[in-house]
Amino acid sequence: MPHKLQLADGTETDPGGTRERIVRSASRLLQRQGYEGTGIKLIAQQAGATLGSVYHFFPGGKQQLAVAAIQHGNREFADMLSLSLEGEDSVARAMENCGRRLAAALRDSDWADGCPVTVTALETVGRIPAIEEACVQALGHWQDLVAARLRRAGFGDAEAAELASTVLSTLEGAETLSQVQRSEQPLLTAGRHLAALIESRMPETPTGR
Amino acid sequence: MPHKLQLADGTETDPGGTRERIVRSASRLLQRQGYEGTGIKLIAQQAGATLGSVYHFFPGGKQQLAVAAIQHGNREFADMLSLSLEGEDSVARAMENCGRRLAAALRDSDWADGCPVTVTALETVGRIPAIEEACVQALGHWQDLVAARLRRAGFGDAEAAELASTVLSTLEGAETLSQVQRSEQPLLTAGRHLAALIESRMPETPTGR
Repeated sequence: MPHKLQLADGTETDPGGTRERIVRSASRLLQRQGYEGTGIKLIAQQAGATLGSVYHFFPGGKQQLAVAAIQHGNREFADMLSLSLEGEDSVARAMENCGRRLAAALRDSDWADGCPVTVTALETVGRIPAIEEACVQALGHWQDLVAARLRRAGFGDAEAAELASTVLSTLEGAETLSQVQRSEQPLLTAGRHLAALIESRMPETPTGR
Repeated sequence: MPHKLQLADGTETDPGGTRERIVRSASRLLQRQGYEGTGIKLIAQQAGATLGSVYHFFPGGKQQLAVAAIQHGNREFADMLSLSLEGEDSVARAMENCGRRLAAALRDSDWADGCPVTVTALETVGRIPAIEEACVQALGHWQDLVAARLRRAGFGDAEAAELASTVLSTLEGAETLSQVQRSEQPLLTAGRHLAALIESRMPETPTGR
């Protein structure tokens, strides 16, 4: 493997970024068509890598690669969520911002790039524990980000956790509806309704909002 | 095919219920593992039917069968939704009822039977028009049922349509979270929050609620 160097401390560098390209391709394909419909050959092809190089980085094959891809999607979606949540002073407006950003990203990808884990999560739940676990981690991570933003706006721990669950449910479902209906409307509407829900439950003396 | 009779008017009867069994098996498998991971052999096996009999009823193969299966899931989920929506005098309580029923059904299936169309919809969107169309129809049908219930409670057409979109988004997403996290909590919480959202927007003089 010319693109891989073994360092003295046993770690490896990846100067050609081959591993990163493979993970990105896998993540995009899992997002677009799920785990079952995505072959490892197609992943290699779209990453401009050889099959040998895919198995070099992922000796556990498609399952191991899918775990890395879901973890990549987890970070990517978390970054987008954080930007949306922090981009507004009011937590209610931040919800509308989430809906708007997700809708714009979906439209810009011609309705192809929805949530990076939903399809794979539903295909593998109860059947492939390692992938299932990576999906549970991703959903938990995103929920924690929303809950932290709600606590900062003055919500108590329990209410912040409950609202964060519904925020994530609503955004996830609206992403599915927007994608299937090829319309920004479900996401934009969901953002507005989440803002209204949170405003109606706002603590009396919010700190930081 | 001993189980099929050709009638004088050209229609066929299916006294053994073979076609129905095939469609039910396909629907359950699409719900549990999606379109890509479900082979036509497995569908035949689980329906106790021969491959020949599957192709007899569905000469278009897996795609044609998937369309029938999604239409079956559409009706099944619509029945459950109607029961939940009509089972309470107040439309807000009806939302909690939806969350409770979906949570109970999911738990009773050991977290296997989520929404009958989500996985297949996301796997095939933009790639298999006939299946995509059946999924769009299903989501539209469910949204119409919720909108009709909201109009009956006094909401105007536009607000009922918007709220119905968010109700469906939230229930769909909470179904995914409940299934992946193996917990009734996301669905129960979503039902309570949808009730709160609808109560906060209730028209002044509701008719029928």
